[in-house]
Amino acid sequence: MDMRQQVKAATALGTVTGEHGSYGGRQLFLTHESAEIGLPMRFALYVPPGGAKGLLVFLVGLTATEETFTMKAGAQRLASELGLALLMPDTSARGDAVTSIPGATASWDFGVAAGFYLDATQMPWATHWRMESYLMRELIPQVQGALGLDAARTGISGHSMGGHGALTLALRHPGAFASLSALAPIAAPSRCPWGEKAFTGYLGEDRDAWPAHDASALMQASRSAPYPHGILVDQGLADKFLDQLHPEAFESACAAVSQPLTLRRHEDYDHGYYFIATVIDDHLAFHARRLIG
Amino acid sequence: MDMRQQVKAATALGTVTGEHGSYGGRQLFLTHESAEIGLPMRFALYVPPGGAKGLLVFLVGLTATEETFTMKAGAQRLASELGLALLMPDTSARGDAVTSIPGATASWDFGVAAGFYLDATQMPWATHWRMESYLMRELIPQVQGALGLDAARTGISGHSMGGHGALTLALRHPGAFASLSALAPIAAPSRCPWGEKAFTGYLGEDRDAWPAHDASALMQASRSAPYPHGILVDQGLADKFLDQLHPEAFESACAAVSQPLTLRRHEDYDHGYYFIATVIDDHLAFHARRLIG
Repeated sequence: MDMRQQVKAATALGTVTGEHGSYGGRQLFLTHESAEIGLPMRFALYVPPGGAKGLLVFLVGLTATEETFTMKAGAQRLASELGLALLMPDTSARGDAVTSIPGATASWDFGVAAGFYLDATQMPWATHWRMESYLMRELIPQVQGALGLDAARTGISGHSMGGHGALTLALRHPGAFASLSALAPIAAPSRCPWGEKAFTGYLGEDRDAWPAHDASALMQASRSAPYPHGILVDQGLADKFLDQLHPEAFESACAAVSQPLTLRRHEDYDHGYYFIATVIDDHLAFHARRLIG
Repeated sequence: MDMRQQVKAATALGTVTGEHGSYGGRQLFLTHESAEIGLPMRFALYVPPGGAKGLLVFLVGLTATEETFTMKAGAQRLASELGLALLMPDTSARGDAVTSIPGATASWDFGVAAGFYLDATQMPWATHWRMESYLMRELIPQVQGALGLDAARTGISGHSMGGHGALTLALRHPGAFASLSALAPIAAPSRCPWGEKAFTGYLGEDRDAWPAHDASALMQASRSAPYPHGILVDQGLADKFLDQLHPEAFESACAAVSQPLTLRRHEDYDHGYYFIATVIDDHLAFHARRLIG
């Protein structure tokens, strides 16, 4: 499919709220009705010139939206050259139906914009906080269909909470993604304040339910290397949230199951988008090698 | 001077409010006291790895701040390779001292964040709306001093209102800049609603005072080509503000004085940062050729 065909099919997935020329391709913003979440959801999709030959799903962090990475990371430049489409979902349900839920907007690290890419089991969150099913059963298959690409041409990455999302979704859904990377991921949420707060609220106080959504625990429990061609993770050492992230836990878990991991630690880089922009090209190239060849 | 020396000298210009690793260089945010404006002002400065061999001043548009281009344009990537420092000023005085002025915050296209890069002559604006003197007598010389670079190593560019600023400051101050470009500039403000509103408020209803701050009028009045090595301007044809910009007026004025102009018109591109990001590398390379060689 060429770019015009892919753009036409993608715009049929919902209502177009923005469309911009970008490096010869098209940067789309859409809203669509999600049956899984039961509310409208927003997402951004970049379609490169010449048509996408691969799809990279990029999940963003706490407080971010579908616009954050889209606007700040500068990923479209190399994606346009590589022939990669970029799919940027939002981070949770939004709107009047959820902001009225007690606790939904009281914290920046829980509730709205803090969906943690899982299906909540605890009320009141279990109704609309269903990001895992939304992504895996709805949004990603719909976008793959619009672009004419399958799982062998789909990779996933993310930043911070989105890095947690990328690692856990890729480990929980074998075969759904052909390539995996993360930037400053929350790599062991069961043992950090952000994760403990989210998991307690969404999954309950029984910690037995937590390892199934913890990248380091999931990796440790693997029988063999789930991504034998390797996983790329970048981490800044001037990251003020380093205590929340535990890259060393993920590193140990990968070593325990002989999962090849390139974990790059960067002096002088923090948790923000100047860091992301600096390393994003390496991630795009890493995914394109697996997805497009 | 190497990067560390330049960063050290730059941070001495004010109070550092943010510092981020970016492509091997440093992205700084500062506030400093401006004698010209009589209030604190904010700016952003990117210092490339290896130290800056040239300086590009980039002026931004209506509603923008020193952070907008810094965060959205992705300019640091190529600037780091070319050895260009990037200086991003704010767009006007801010804070309690000015928001209390009647009319200062009533419009998005006048007052705060709409300084139009000139010195107002009309009260109440004449006191603090002095962006031209601030830039030309204070900020740019101070940053040049910190980086050890002179006018022959300094270029100027900008977007929309900032494109107006770049063109007019470069034409009003011969010798102050060695290279000049603009993106979707307000190229003939005397004849568009944005410019008429701003000039009436800042310069007064007497239109005789306006041509001195109108890029097309200034160019038309030149005795010879002020930038004989050429000026680069990019303009999107899907720009919803095209009626405000009048690139054809600047094109005609350049032709009248034999000023070489590369005016590129781009189908499918709008007024926003997806357009800016798409063409910014060409501008950085254009300036680097003149400033660094």
